[in-house]
Amino acid sequence: MSASLQLNIEHVREAARFLDGQVVRTPTLRSAALDRIIGAEVWLKAECMQHIGAFKARGALHTVGRLSDAERARGIVTYSSGNHAQAVAWAARQHGIAAAVAMPTDAPSVKVESVQALGARVTFAGTTSSERKVAALAIAAETGAVVIPPFDHPHIVAGQGTATLELFEDVMTATGGETLDALVVPVGGGGVIAGACLVAATHRTQVYSAEPYGCDAMGASLEAGERVAVEPGPTLADGLKPVRVGELNFAIAQAAGVKPLRVNDEEIGRALITVLAHARVLVEPSGAAGVAAAIRGLAGGPRRVGIMLTGGNVGMDTVSELLSRYSLHPVRW
Amino acid sequence: MSASLQLNIEHVREAARFLDGQVVRTPTLRSAALDRIIGAEVWLKAECMQHIGAFKARGALHTVGRLSDAERARGIVTYSSGNHAQAVAWAARQHGIAAAVAMPTDAPSVKVESVQALGARVTFAGTTSSERKVAALAIAAETGAVVIPPFDHPHIVAGQGTATLELFEDVMTATGGETLDALVVPVGGGGVIAGACLVAATHRTQVYSAEPYGCDAMGASLEAGERVAVEPGPTLADGLKPVRVGELNFAIAQAAGVKPLRVNDEEIGRALITVLAHARVLVEPSGAAGVAAAIRGLAGGPRRVGIMLTGGNVGMDTVSELLSRYSLHPVRW
Repeated sequence: MSASLQLNIEHVREAARFLDGQVVRTPTLRSAALDRIIGAEVWLKAECMQHIGAFKARGALHTVGRLSDAERARGIVTYSSGNHAQAVAWAARQHGIAAAVAMPTDAPSVKVESVQALGARVTFAGTTSSERKVAALAIAAETGAVVIPPFDHPHIVAGQGTATLELFEDVMTATGGETLDALVVPVGGGGVIAGACLVAATHRTQVYSAEPYGCDAMGASLEAGERVAVEPGPTLADGLKPVRVGELNFAIAQAAGVKPLRVNDEEIGRALITVLAHARVLVEPSGAAGVAAAIRGLAGGPRRVGIMLTGGNVGMDTVSELLSRYSLHPVRW
Repeated sequence: MSASLQLNIEHVREAARFLDGQVVRTPTLRSAALDRIIGAEVWLKAECMQHIGAFKARGALHTVGRLSDAERARGIVTYSSGNHAQAVAWAARQHGIAAAVAMPTDAPSVKVESVQALGARVTFAGTTSSERKVAALAIAAETGAVVIPPFDHPHIVAGQGTATLELFEDVMTATGGETLDALVVPVGGGGVIAGACLVAATHRTQVYSAEPYGCDAMGASLEAGERVAVEPGPTLADGLKPVRVGELNFAIAQAAGVKPLRVNDEEIGRALITVLAHARVLVEPSGAAGVAAAIRGLAGGPRRVGIMLTGGNVGMDTVSELLSRYSLHPVRW
């Protein structure tokens, strides 16, 4: 773990140079209505507009791109609830490498179809992160494929951190050198928040984790002072259901003093519709969790708040359902 | 008209300098799925993320910002189906000027409420552009307010042109100096397309107008070789219903050799859902007309196509309705 903590913003900057021109420099969006609703100056990092519709493309391409020729020849395998699966399938295709993915049986069909369309072989394995990890390791043992972990890896963390690096750059450019007081990040396994912490540490920005109630592996671990497992309950945010956050990811978040926040499905659904109606961008439920947490409120009333919109892979059926529930009053006040 | 034709890209560049820092430099978006659907490399200019949710903020702020102190003291008045109304109300608020707006009785409530929230006084007048223009001129005659026309004015055209200027800049930056073969622009009165033509002329880019069937004031005029009036029929694209395009706007479009395209409501609705599902951005029906036209097909199979997403002011009820109709098959093939 001590080696893990040696990761810092220089590794993120190196990843940014490595990825330059290969990933989308996604826009940083403002919305006057969202500012009023949240009571702060809000800067949204729209990773829903990244390749494969999520920040995961960054870490996957960074990790896959650094494999040796011998490793590439063995093929790669991963496990994911959806977006990392798509990201690895995409990165593998970019590099002409064979890829296999273990996905949960309840993964949204929009994500499964996308993985298959990208040319990866899908195996279904249970509904928890542990079950699909076991399945992926079995494939690796059988075929010799290299495992690309979804979050607990320095190359993944540094790659995901590049999204936060761009967000801070955009804020500083637009404000003439000012920075964010707070940054809210949805947390599954902790890849994007660990990368965010490495960047935020150089800005004295308070980082908040946003997780669904019952799927709060990061919040529970931060409060316990050690990495603990949870039994993820049902949630609209299908991307935020790991049993455990990564060891490296937890160590970085703990050292950075991340404050945990939790939201429920109604808040996530309302946040998705609020972002759609006011910022005119489509996020998936997991991607709306940060906005949901910020709407609920951040301690101390930070003046300038960054929020990571982590992904946009959501079925139109889900959007339709949420619109029918929340469209007349996207937020409650 | 000959004086009008002296407008050129230098006026757009001057407007861009005038507006620098006061309007959003909206993102230029890519979508691999949209590329496949349209059969070209597609670059979307997301003016739905502009202030007040539409490109109209550019022309309005440019025109209002150039008023003299004496003119400001008289207040301003305009007429609009919605987005120009919001833009003028917003520009007036930015400059502390009183504003009145004549809007059609069938304007979407989301647009009317926004105008009122921005502090402008709304008068309802019929459903056609002619009726609301008469009402606005009556207000001007009575109060001495300065009329800010919605499209037929050099400052408006130059201001709207800045969106196209940014689009070409983004394409050239991303491609290492290449340009667009085609540019598709939804047309109401012709403000954004006239500005687009001034910019496209320096790139040898073919410009296409996209209008709803029955509301094809530009297409009918281009084909007649002179500016003609239409009786706008019902359309989902509430922003594209003028009786006539502007005189200046037509002259510029005609000189530039704009090719007219027409789309129906189903194509517009499917395009809106397609953009939402694949580019993850919310546009209003008028803003989806360019995508609808490009999906239908562009002559000669241009390789690199720019499409102006003109605005995003659409009620969640409309989005919900369109999702229920088209979400399972956002495009037909």
